[in-house]
Amino acid sequence: MSSMWGSNIRISIFGESHGIGIGVVIDGLPAGEKLDEDELRREMSRRAPGYDPAATSRRESDIPEICSGVLGGVTTGAPLCAVIENANTRPVDYDKLSRLPRPGHADYTGAVRYDGYNDVRGGGHFSGRLTAPLAFAGAVCKQILARHGVTVGGHIFSIGNIFDHSFDAVNVSAQQLSELSRSGFAVINPDIEARMRRAIDDAQMDGDSVGGTVEIAAVGVPAGIGTPMFGGVENVISSIVFGVPAVKGIEFGAGFNVARMRGSESNDPFTTEKGRVVTSKNNCGGILGGITTGMPILFKAAIKPTPSIGQKQRTVDLKSGRDAVLTINGRHDPCIVPRALPAIEAAAAIAIADMMKEVGML
Amino acid sequence: MSSMWGSNIRISIFGESHGIGIGVVIDGLPAGEKLDEDELRREMSRRAPGYDPAATSRRESDIPEICSGVLGGVTTGAPLCAVIENANTRPVDYDKLSRLPRPGHADYTGAVRYDGYNDVRGGGHFSGRLTAPLAFAGAVCKQILARHGVTVGGHIFSIGNIFDHSFDAVNVSAQQLSELSRSGFAVINPDIEARMRRAIDDAQMDGDSVGGTVEIAAVGVPAGIGTPMFGGVENVISSIVFGVPAVKGIEFGAGFNVARMRGSESNDPFTTEKGRVVTSKNNCGGILGGITTGMPILFKAAIKPTPSIGQKQRTVDLKSGRDAVLTINGRHDPCIVPRALPAIEAAAAIAIADMMKEVGML
Amino acid sequence: MSSMWGSNIRISIFGESHGIGIGVVIDGLPAGEKLDEDELRREMSRRAPGYDPAATSRRESDIPEICSGVLGGVTTGAPLCAVIENANTRPVDYDKLSRLPRPGHADYTGAVRYDGYNDVRGGGHFSGRLTAPLAFAGAVCKQILARHGVTVGGHIFSIGNIFDHSFDAVNVSAQQLSELSRSGFAVINPDIEARMRRAIDDAQMDGDSVGGTVEIAAVGVPAGIGTPMFGGVENVISSIVFGVPAVKGIEFGAGFNVARMRGSESNDPFTTEKGRVVTSKNNCGGILGGITTGMPILFKAAIKPTPSIGQKQRTVDLKSGRDAVLTINGRHDPCIVPRALPAIEAAAAIAIADMMKEVGML
Amino acid sequence: MSSMWGSNIRISIFGESHGIGIGVVIDGLPAGEKLDEDELRREMSRRAPGYDPAATSRRESDIPEICSGVLGGVTTGAPLCAVIENANTRPVDYDKLSRLPRPGHADYTGAVRYDGYNDVRGGGHFSGRLTAPLAFAGAVCKQILARHGVTVGGHIFSIGNIFDHSFDAVNVSAQQLSELSRSGFAVINPDIEARMRRAIDDAQMDGDSVGGTVEIAAVGVPAGIGTPMFGGVENVISSIVFGVPAVKGIEFGAGFNVARMRGSESNDPFTTEKGRVVTSKNNCGGILGGITTGMPILFKAAIKPTPSIGQKQRTVDLKSGRDAVLTINGRHDPCIVPRALPAIEAAAAIAIADMMKEVGML
Repeated sequence: MSSMWGSNIRISIFGESHGIGIGVVIDGLPAGEKLDEDELRREMSRRAPGYDPAATSRRESDIPEICSGVLGGVTTGAPLCAVIENANTRPVDYDKLSRLPRPGHADYTGAVRYDGYNDVRGGGHFSGRLTAPLAFAGAVCKQILARHGVTVGGHIFSIGNIFDHSFDAVNVSAQQLSELSRSGFAVINPDIEARMRRAIDDAQMDGDSVGGTVEIAAVGVPAGIGTPMFGGVENVISSIVFGVPAVKGIEFGAGFNVARMRGSESNDPFTTEKGRVVTSKNNCGGILGGITTGMPILFKAAIKPTPSIGQKQRTVDLKSGRDAVLTINGRHDPCIVPRALPAIEAAAAIAIADMMKEVGML
Repeated sequence: MSSMWGSNIRISIFGESHGIGIGVVIDGLPAGEKLDEDELRREMSRRAPGYDPAATSRRESDIPEICSGVLGGVTTGAPLCAVIENANTRPVDYDKLSRLPRPGHADYTGAVRYDGYNDVRGGGHFSGRLTAPLAFAGAVCKQILARHGVTVGGHIFSIGNIFDHSFDAVNVSAQQLSELSRSGFAVINPDIEARMRRAIDDAQMDGDSVGGTVEIAAVGVPAGIGTPMFGGVENVISSIVFGVPAVKGIEFGAGFNVARMRGSESNDPFTTEKGRVVTSKNNCGGILGGITTGMPILFKAAIKPTPSIGQKQRTVDLKSGRDAVLTINGRHDPCIVPRALPAIEAAAAIAIADMMKEVGML
Repeated sequence: MSSMWGSNIRISIFGESHGIGIGVVIDGLPAGEKLDEDELRREMSRRAPGYDPAATSRRESDIPEICSGVLGGVTTGAPLCAVIENANTRPVDYDKLSRLPRPGHADYTGAVRYDGYNDVRGGGHFSGRLTAPLAFAGAVCKQILARHGVTVGGHIFSIGNIFDHSFDAVNVSAQQLSELSRSGFAVINPDIEARMRRAIDDAQMDGDSVGGTVEIAAVGVPAGIGTPMFGGVENVISSIVFGVPAVKGIEFGAGFNVARMRGSESNDPFTTEKGRVVTSKNNCGGILGGITTGMPILFKAAIKPTPSIGQKQRTVDLKSGRDAVLTINGRHDPCIVPRALPAIEAAAAIAIADMMKEVGML
Repeated sequence: MSSMWGSNIRISIFGESHGIGIGVVIDGLPAGEKLDEDELRREMSRRAPGYDPAATSRRESDIPEICSGVLGGVTTGAPLCAVIENANTRPVDYDKLSRLPRPGHADYTGAVRYDGYNDVRGGGHFSGRLTAPLAFAGAVCKQILARHGVTVGGHIFSIGNIFDHSFDAVNVSAQQLSELSRSGFAVINPDIEARMRRAIDDAQMDGDSVGGTVEIAAVGVPAGIGTPMFGGVENVISSIVFGVPAVKGIEFGAGFNVARMRGSESNDPFTTEKGRVVTSKNNCGGILGGITTGMPILFKAAIKPTPSIGQKQRTVDLKSGRDAVLTINGRHDPCIVPRALPAIEAAAAIAIADMMKEVGML
């Protein structure tokens, strides 16, 4: 619980936004797995602010240092710890931060939970910055999964009310996922990027922010992963995906839409393809009874708008107990959906690796 | 993992639909908690088929026998085991069941996962019948929570395309939840029951089934429960709720709708009420940074249509490897949403009890 | 924690000495494992009071009913629950039991831990009777392990100051373990049984009891099981063995004797035998760095004398707060070592199965 | 499992002897706990080689940097990560190390477990150096426990065949433990240090090493901590103490001696002292039924001789499969008992903090 997760591959995440460093320990990785550090770095850069793979001056910050568990570029089987130093943290106005909790943030709940001792600078341990070590752990798992034929990827499915196409639930391919991961703004419908960017810009112009959703797919996962009841694929994935700040919902396969269907529509008929049992549709998102069918695993996650906005907001002065007005200064990301995408992919990759290891497939 | 769940209050569920019995062990309950057996029985009866509290002839089946952990009606602190005998299980056509996996069921994935040794009779351990011990464990937790001022309840939010009102996210009350739990068909809008029942009947007439959603609320949960990242309230609740068969999605507070909002709309301003910090809206569903705000916890879950339908369906004959047509005989519940409701409430109650115990509040 | 144990094969034990029933849920068993019920019954009978395999009238009590997880005598992969009914429980003098805690028992600590709500009848959940479900779970694991070439067994190493021979740390064999498990009083040195029995009888004559030790061996465990630090074989085995009431110490290989040695004596040289790396001695008990060497795993456990004795003992009247004298009536087992032996073997078998499953060997 | 431990306070240890750094993440610490960094440093220095508190030139190496979880010297409730850089690691002869496994070390078992990918330099993750982060985590817990009236300490009980006095099982005091922790060679009997040092020197002169035991006490632990069966104090402490390399046995209270006793001798009578229930003896080591009595918790641990010795040893060349002779060069600690002492104290402190948090006492 807390900032540790996992049964067979376990991660332990630490750090605060404005502290000395953040990082992750990954325990239970198989030994002998070669790690491509360039690829790790590329994955990490996807969640950097303003990431644009076309740009030549790649920001080299947020590069984790691997302290343990890797020798000569290969995993040793011992815990892998990676640390990212926090650079350029500026002094902050503590007093204001702890007196005036920001709406939509964990300032208030964190203060109640930790008796006011929580680090409020930049959100402390609640900061979105903590998705960096998660993304790193996911990048490690992605490389291992790839060697077993599994590819995890995703795209921005919506920004505000602008929606991309969904994945083809049956035919989504490793290649499509790979291409999306190399895009600076991962969408399926090429015409939608400009409209989504405009929605983000509009929000920013208004001193506001905007939410969205992402869609994730994992292809190549063999049938028979997961267990009934509480070890099911939906349970395991959701238990880690809600660790990404701002995620407020998750749905697998047809998800909430399936609730509007009749059984004759929602059921996915079985058939065979090249001697392999498949389903001709995939409303179940590749999961029946908590266990993989061998078809693509598919889910969508809802991400709330960045709670830090430029507009004045009502809050309470915790010291005086009186209502107050808060203005959050500084520049804020008007939409975290593009940066949340690699973090949620990472969470899914870690979950799938954990479940494949459970049945001896990793 | 698998059929065990929990960190501070742990449950272990066992049994198959057509086996000797099903049940649950609950480990970690506080000692000295009086259990009202009539109330436990009433809660259990809510998930019985065709439950109608107005009827005089209450079905007394599915009453769990408490084997341990309770002395003189009071918890001892030792593990509580409750067993429900399986009565009236009829012989089934094994061979057909294991050859022709039912679409939408776990017959195929269970066979892959367990090398064909899974009990396929009535779905075996994957059966919705396994929600009975879950409902029992939840009924126990509800009684303990009530003594700490916490009430967990819910209603049918939709059947197919027929939607009930949502809870008032700020003002939903323990009394409203209590009344709903005593209803044979729990909805907020009294006019909606007839329409929902008609949608169910229509599906049944067509040899079909229909899905739906439920909305759950927990009121009275103090601020400061849960932890950041993986021990957050969303993580913990979703990790158990997906243990209820047929759940395919979960959203907290405004959920997927929040993804369409701007921050100025989604953020819940803080204010005070009777000296207590509250939020004037509750789009976050009572959870910020994984930790409770003290406002009602709210979530919705999507439930797929019963996969067992009367219509012919396409499947594969696993023995011959050829496509086949399957007709599922017998009478099937055309909509499991009303019966899933108490199971999902139960899951939420167990999760909240677990998290309150973590911080020493139980 | 509490009465649940395990990472890969998990058990959940429930019940009280004088309650309705006791039992165990075993979650995570491999599917497709045939269980020999006669053999399960034979293993269970080993811990029955006054067990003598030569006697014709075998007591058929304490036979567990398997409620789930087994179909046609074969594991299904779903949780296996076995329940043993408590028969012949007699009414007891509650008031005296809860006022006058028995020295050496958990009456006092249980009352403090559970605010006086613990079931004190016969020791409640603390009773040695709870080793019956543990022995059952171990008997299941032993059968599965045997199919993978692993045999777990043991003998009474000492009763009071009477000591048996130790196992040959290098050459202890599956056959020897199998023969010991069929003995009514398992010792290596045939001359020692009479002396040990006399020590027990002498204690009984004096209204007293006597302690002892057991030695356990597991042969056939492949090299490479376990992990460094906290997942080591010593950690895992000790974490379950101390679950057997009255165990107060455990030592692996040469154990406390190794602490008196020099390195040149304690180190086990490596050599080869039939192309396999072995050690020519086995002071390490088959474990280096927490990981198995492939040699026999060996440990001894210390068992305190039965705390229930016929002699008058000093205690405190918890109600009045005054010193008091306690006489425990009834017949008590003057030495639990012979009955603890199969329980400790069982604990070891469960631990080894758990660790073999971790690395995909089960 | 593996290098993570704990239920309520969890630690995750990482690093290798000759890697970039070693460290620990501590998750679940209470918020608002002031940490005295000088005291942390002092505790850490106790396990430094050749520690002598009288010396003026204190070695400042092995000082952990706290990266997270502490703000202004006070815990925030977020995970605390501390990293120790590895300085002065010299190049090593890989090939020889991986070909010729050192007897008594994990070179061979690690290679089998991790398919030869384990880091063998200096023992890698199996190195005794990994007790530094454990000692750090223990030092943090000790400070928190002290604020709740609990003191954990210990002494060298034996080196080879030279034995110190045991603690007075009833009257061991916080002050005695505190004084021992400030000693460069912690023994109770002042006359014994010289003899023990001589035994160590003699072993060194012979190119050999020597083992020993430590005795640990925890005073001030309230009655009622721990749970029956697998969450008992013995289970929890042993599950972490065997994480200290070279520990091969553990016994609580009278331990293996209790197995030689009769019940009338081993049972600890209850009485009262200043209105508090106590036992007049303490053979049970402060633990009955897995739960604390309120008397001192006492255990001894057996530590094998340093396996690295100067003498020639027989081993196997894993490449050629032939027997070989190994000479380990360099200077080795002829007795690790004095340095293992603070690590084992630390393990006990972490275990006790974990169990006190379970019942809401931390």
